[in-house]
Parts: sequence; structure tokens; C-alpha cells
Amino acid sequence: MTDQPSSLSPDSSPLPDAFRAIAEDIDAVFDRILPVPDDARAPLFEAMRHAAIGGGKRVRPLLLTETASLFGVDRDAALLASTAVEAIHVYSLIHDDLPCMDDDDLRRGKPTVHKAFGEDVAVLAGDSLHDLAFELLVSPDVHSDPFVGVELVTALATASGPSGMAGGQMMDLAADGEDFDLATVTRLQQLKTGALIGVSVEMGAILGRLPDEGRSPLRAYARDIGLAFQIADDLLDVEGDEELAGKALGKDEAAGKATFLSLLGVERAREQAFFLVDQAEGHLQDFGQEADVLRALARFIVERDR
Amino acid sequence: MTDQPSSLSPDSSPLPDAFRAIAEDIDAVFDRILPVPDDARAPLFEAMRHAAIGGGKRVRPLLLTETASLFGVDRDAALLASTAVEAIHVYSLIHDDLPCMDDDDLRRGKPTVHKAFGEDVAVLAGDSLHDLAFELLVSPDVHSDPFVGVELVTALATASGPSGMAGGQMMDLAADGEDFDLATVTRLQQLKTGALIGVSVEMGAILGRLPDEGRSPLRAYARDIGLAFQIADDLLDVEGDEELAGKALGKDEAAGKATFLSLLGVERAREQAFFLVDQAEGHLQDFGQEADVLRALARFIVERDR
Repeated sequence: MTDQPSSLSPDSSPLPDAFRAIAEDIDAVFDRILPVPDDARAPLFEAMRHAAIGGGKRVRPLLLTETASLFGVDRDAALLASTAVEAIHVYSLIHDDLPCMDDDDLRRGKPTVHKAFGEDVAVLAGDSLHDLAFELLVSPDVHSDPFVGVELVTALATASGPSGMAGGQMMDLAADGEDFDLATVTRLQQLKTGALIGVSVEMGAILGRLPDEGRSPLRAYARDIGLAFQIADDLLDVEGDEELAGKALGKDEAAGKATFLSLLGVERAREQAFFLVDQAEGHLQDFGQEADVLRALARFIVERDR
Repeated sequence: MTDQPSSLSPDSSPLPDAFRAIAEDIDAVFDRILPVPDDARAPLFEAMRHAAIGGGKRVRPLLLTETASLFGVDRDAALLASTAVEAIHVYSLIHDDLPCMDDDDLRRGKPTVHKAFGEDVAVLAGDSLHDLAFELLVSPDVHSDPFVGVELVTALATASGPSGMAGGQMMDLAADGEDFDLATVTRLQQLKTGALIGVSVEMGAILGRLPDEGRSPLRAYARDIGLAFQIADDLLDVEGDEELAGKALGKDEAAGKATFLSLLGVERAREQAFFLVDQAEGHLQDFGQEADVLRALARFIVERDR
């Protein structure tokens, strides 16, 4: 999105190492909890593994583990909770890619699940990852206190369901060809992308036993980067490289959707994204260098090329 | 399935009143928790209401509330947990009916969700009910003790996911035209139908704070009626009345699926269903008349005409 060198350059940022570590760790958890059974359910597990392992930037797990680490949470516990959030994200991608939804053939540079395993298996693989998320979340390895488990489930189910991500997807379906205004598009994106990004940070705070009244700055950080993330996605949809992105681009414009871009234009949208990132960093002012990865992540979100 | 008068005749059984009450109560909970929002998410909520309200026998909620009542659990708490199980059941029906799955136009005498609202909305409505189930389960109105919430989520997520219902559905997809043996078909059905029936009883016991070691008879009861339920479904698929059933029948045979019926024949299958019901009643021998509805429900499962 810019002519600057990518923020992935190793000398300037703690981010590349953090991205590498979270990608390896989340893959390892999915690999461990999804052994392929020796029975007729094998294709279901293979489909879940196809979608869940070896792909994606793992932005949500990184947000969760980095927030949790601010409060000294054990990394293994945070990784399990992160895998739960990522399972929700992956399930939503599987269902989103279905022919009756976005009808995509390619995801993260691989065939989508329904292309590789059939639509019926894809529906079930998404549904199964959806269950897996909640099963993981209440595991005693995430926390010994059941209050935390209940709070995590409440947060994730709300962020994922009709008052969160699924509600945003519904608004997105209704937006095809509709002329939503900026307030409505903002609300749509806060639900569709923002809810899961927000709950990643929230779950880190829950694991860290941060009281509700202390979470406002982190919530504000998450809200800002969630919107910035979506604006950046809109820009990449127009300006990005399909090979780098590993998926088809240019679909919003073809569908005649109201987006930040169609409403603001490229220049104002880009400005707004950078403004949101500055603002997000401001919300972290009470933290020291222990929040440097979160700061770098905010910047990465608008500077990424995929 | 028999020439006997239906066990729904009011003078001989507590079941008709119990069925009427649970149907009203579950409808009331769904109606309360699914208000249609005044925004672009409205069709999503309407689709969820279309599928969830005003249909179905509510066998799983009845199992849960009746089991819970054996241990003095507050009915309102048990109803919320029952609505969670029913939300999982309804979500699975919505996804099962999709063109890429069973491709059904009719469910409970109404157009299926994808027929009435489109496939994309149907996928999202199923996903949303899936989230709603877990959100409901950890509500403080179900229990004040978070240990109970965590145990309920673990039980329901396991029963619903790839080691339960979704796993059974995957085996069922693989069974199209396959020649599974009786052991495999039994395992398939124990997952596909049995897991959710079993967890309904289990969740009643969890709410009743029955220790794990005391649950064996109830689990055995649930396992037996789960299999009997499926055999009865197979028989109805061949002998039933489409108008009464409110859905298309005769699909197993057309698909060349291995079922209890294709493996045992009609007579032995019917005998086995009645044997299982006798056995299920035997498992309840330590309970008095407080378990009469559960006994009658076991019998209803094989004597029902839809």
C-alpha cells in the first residue's frame, strides 16, 4: 500500500519474529488437536486441517497472545484461547467462500475447502471448527478458574454470532448493490471484521484478569485497528496483488458494494486508515515497551501488502 | 408404526401435556431472545425465527427438562439450557437441508430456510443459532455456578462437533452408496442422532449436580432411545406419511444408503426398536413416577407416526 519497505523488515520491528512464532505455535496446536481418525470421518478432519493449518497471518492470535502477555498470562494458555478465536475465523472463511456466499476458489493461495473436498464437507468442516472453538475455550488448560471460561465463551459467542461477525456478514449480503451511508458501512465493518479483532484483545484481557473498567484503552485500540484493517482490505481489494493475497481481488467494485473506498475515495480512505493507527497507538500510551508488538501490529495492518 | 392407538391419547399418558408445555415454553424463549432488529440484519433474525419457532416435537428439550426435574432443577433454568440444545438441533437441520447436503424443500411442513430466505442467509442463520446456543448456556440465568457453565459447554460442544453430530453427518455423507456393516451404521447413528439426544439427558444431570459416577443409568437410557429413535426414523422414511412428517420421505433408499432397515429388514428393525425401548425403561428402574414422562417418551419414540 505504500512505497515504504514493508514493516516486516527484521531490523526495525519486533513483528517478524512475533509473526513467525505465532504462525508456528498456532499450526502446532491445530495439528495436535486435529488428528485424522481412522474411520469415515477422515475427510472431515482433513478438510479442517486444510483450512486451519499452514496459512494466514494469524493477526487475531497475535493480538490475543500479545494482550495476554501484558498481564503475565502463561503463553500456552493464551495460545489455546488464540486457537479458539482462529478456529472461528477459519470457519467463517470456509463458509464465506462457499458458492452460495462469495464463491471463491482460492484462499491463502490454496484451493478453498469446497473446491478441495466438496461443498457438503466444507459446510461440516466449518461447523466443526465452530464447535471446536468453544470446546477448546473451556479446557482446563486455558484457565483453572471456571469464571474465566464462562467469560471467554460469552465474549466469543457474542462476537461471532448475529450481534457480531455473522450479523456483519448479513449486512454485507444486504449491501450488494445497496447504497449504505458511511455510518452504516462503519457499523457493518465493526461487526463483520471488528468484532473478532476486538474479542481477541478482550480475551487477552480476560485471561489477564484485567477488571472490566480497566479495559477501555485496549477496547479503543482494538476498535481503531479493526476499522483500519478493513479500510486496508478495501484498498488491497483495489490495488493489491492477487498472487501475494492468495485470493481473488476486485470483487467489491464488481459487486457494486458500498465500501469505505466507494464512499471516501482512495486518498481519504488511506488517510483515515493512518489516522486510526495513530489513534490506536495513542490508546496504548500507558504501556511501555511490552506493548511494542501491539504498536507495530497496528502499523503493519495498514502497511501490509496482503 | 403400529396398529395401537397413539401414546398421545390423553387418558393413558402424561406425555401430551408435557409435549404441549415444552413446545409452548421453547417457542416463548426463542421468541424472547430473537427480537428482529431494525437494521439490515433483519432477514437473518427472521430466518432464525422461521426455523426455530413453531415447529418440531422438541424431543431434546423434553428430555433435558424432564431429566433436570428428577433432581429438582428450576424449570426456567432447564428451559434455557434446553433452548441451547434445540438451537444446535435447528442449526443442524438448516445446514442439512441445504442443496449441497440433503437438498430438502420442506421441513416441519414449511419451506426450508434456504427456500424461504436464500442459501446465503440459511448458512448464516445456522451459524448464528450455533453461536446462540453457547451464548445461552453460559448465561447466569442457567446457573449461578460457573463450573456448571463450563461443564455444559464442554458437553454440548463435544456432542455437536466432529466427535459427535457433525462427525456422524460426515459418516452419513460417506455412506451414500457405501456398504457399511451394522457396527458402522450403529456408530454413525450414535454420533449423528445419538450424541445430541445423549447430551440432552446429560445436561439435565449436569444442571441437577448429579456426580459423574451416578449418571450411568441415565446415559444408558439415552443411548438406547437414541438408537431406537433412529430406527424409528428409518421405518418412517419407508412407511411414513409425508404430509404428517412435514418433509420428504423415502430418501435413504433412493440414495442407496446402508441403514438399520437395509441391514436388518423391516421386521427385525422394528423388533430391535421395541427391545431398545424396553431396555431403556429398565435403566430407569431406580426412579419412581417422577420418571414417568421419560418412560412414556421412550415408548413414544418408536410408536410415533411422524
